[in-house]
Amino acid sequence: MIDKLIKKIKETNAPIVVGLDPMLGYVPNHLKAKVFKEMGETLEAAGEVIFQYNKMIVDQVYDLIPAVKPQIAMYEQFGIPGLVAYKRTIDYCKEKGLIVIGDIKRGDIGSTSEAYAVGHLGKVQVGKKSYAAFDEDFATVNPYLGSDGINPFLKVCNSEDKGIFILVKTSNPSSGEFQDQLISGKPLYELVGEQVAKWGETSMGTTYSNVGAVVGATYPEMGKTLRKLMPKTFILVPGYGAQGGRGKDLLPFFNEDGFGAIINSSRGIIAAYKQEAYQHFGDENFAEASRAAVIDMQKDIMQALEGRK
Amino acid sequence: MIDKLIKKIKETNAPIVVGLDPMLGYVPNHLKAKVFKEMGETLEAAGEVIFQYNKMIVDQVYDLIPAVKPQIAMYEQFGIPGLVAYKRTIDYCKEKGLIVIGDIKRGDIGSTSEAYAVGHLGKVQVGKKSYAAFDEDFATVNPYLGSDGINPFLKVCNSEDKGIFILVKTSNPSSGEFQDQLISGKPLYELVGEQVAKWGETSMGTTYSNVGAVVGATYPEMGKTLRKLMPKTFILVPGYGAQGGRGKDLLPFFNEDGFGAIINSSRGIIAAYKQEAYQHFGDENFAEASRAAVIDMQKDIMQALEGRK
Repeated sequence: MIDKLIKKIKETNAPIVVGLDPMLGYVPNHLKAKVFKEMGETLEAAGEVIFQYNKMIVDQVYDLIPAVKPQIAMYEQFGIPGLVAYKRTIDYCKEKGLIVIGDIKRGDIGSTSEAYAVGHLGKVQVGKKSYAAFDEDFATVNPYLGSDGINPFLKVCNSEDKGIFILVKTSNPSSGEFQDQLISGKPLYELVGEQVAKWGETSMGTTYSNVGAVVGATYPEMGKTLRKLMPKTFILVPGYGAQGGRGKDLLPFFNEDGFGAIINSSRGIIAAYKQEAYQHFGDENFAEASRAAVIDMQKDIMQALEGRK
Repeated sequence: MIDKLIKKIKETNAPIVVGLDPMLGYVPNHLKAKVFKEMGETLEAAGEVIFQYNKMIVDQVYDLIPAVKPQIAMYEQFGIPGLVAYKRTIDYCKEKGLIVIGDIKRGDIGSTSEAYAVGHLGKVQVGKKSYAAFDEDFATVNPYLGSDGINPFLKVCNSEDKGIFILVKTSNPSSGEFQDQLISGKPLYELVGEQVAKWGETSMGTTYSNVGAVVGATYPEMGKTLRKLMPKTFILVPGYGAQGGRGKDLLPFFNEDGFGAIINSSRGIIAAYKQEAYQHFGDENFAEASRAAVIDMQKDIMQALEGRK
């Protein structure tokens, strides 16, 4: 699956993923009002609103980007109807040719981890039949439980040609509480990074592994170290824009070949129309504002990458 | 919510939680055959099978135990129909007066963590209305992302009188890969344990905190240390039976007052009829076998606790 992602990055010339993390507060009032009028202020309506919002944005940006990253929490909070919207979003994005990274951050052990791996990336058996329940292309995974939690995902990566991104150093301010703790002089995130590189060897694409890492844009110095520790690991980098990172800050996450990283922006794209720079689009044209924001982000990153040469 | 759990433990004299982690392989063939005949070998049928299986077990054990712990992965693997079965299981168990610990092991940051907290323990806003989407009483949470991930859960614990159990030392063999790493001479799990105790102070019940910890039965020595580090923390202990722990091994997890721990058994109870000791019940009476296994587990633990006096 990593080969497919790299191919799409080359085609679009955009190492970018758009985070589909819809909050009802981001959705323009006219869209909410229309759906609430039809369906009432229900969980079903909330699911419908976020699906329609996603769809309109995807229609505007799908030709510019290789991948999207729906954050399942934003759907799960609305219960079953929210998760129906999550699944509809996955299916719609795949129809549009996009690679889907499910930001699920699951992590458990043994048969439980296997259930997550099977449910999100693989196929589950029911009697003699089998089904791909959520069917994302990649999923994010939490490493705190060690190899027992990761191995079932590696198995599915190989059997189904899928991929994962393992949390190494997250973008939030408090990520250091545990992740930065020194172990024999080395921070925990480096230890996790080394292990990610090892796990990655068991599921290689042509040049990069199907096993990637999550490293926050907010920590470029750490990104530099991790880039060296995990040369064949693709890094998914959250924290662009809204959380502070900008084009030049992202260079440490890329390899010399110009690959090895994919930068996520969520709010900065999907709620672009609320920013001063894109306000002129107006609420009605929120999806066009998202398109403009993707174009600007692509320029910012590609200029930084070209400036390095 | 911790006060309610302690009250139920006193009433039942059983510091026991039954893990509702149904795998289709555990379900007797006659039950699967009946549902598959009606509904085909579909995801919907899988959801129906595991709900019926759970229900029959719950009907047999609800008067003996304070709480159940459905493992969401086992439902999520069947996609939306599986999650419908998860929600039906929660609702049914609450109808029967049981406390429900959602074993969801979620963990993210900021607004994303808030979405999980709201979706599982709190209420989500849709226009002027609000809904409790999954509405478990407790949820398990992963600490790897630090306070940013935990704070939204603490907020909901206080506003909705709910509780959480934070992963400290998991029961699996590879849990040591990261959790046992020494930081200034102290293993990571102790650092997490200390932090759990601190977080716990912000959401206290009468004697224990609404913020609990998960510590595997397979590590009694570590349990002893953690018990001292977190005196007001209730410990959820997985790994009884199937994973190796037995009554006497569990003493280190309890305080002198005989409280402070609740022991989980999943497969050992819900698939008891497959064990030699309970085989005589036969497939048809699998739920009665579960009842017998709960009674034996309660005796085993209470004998160990009384033997300590």
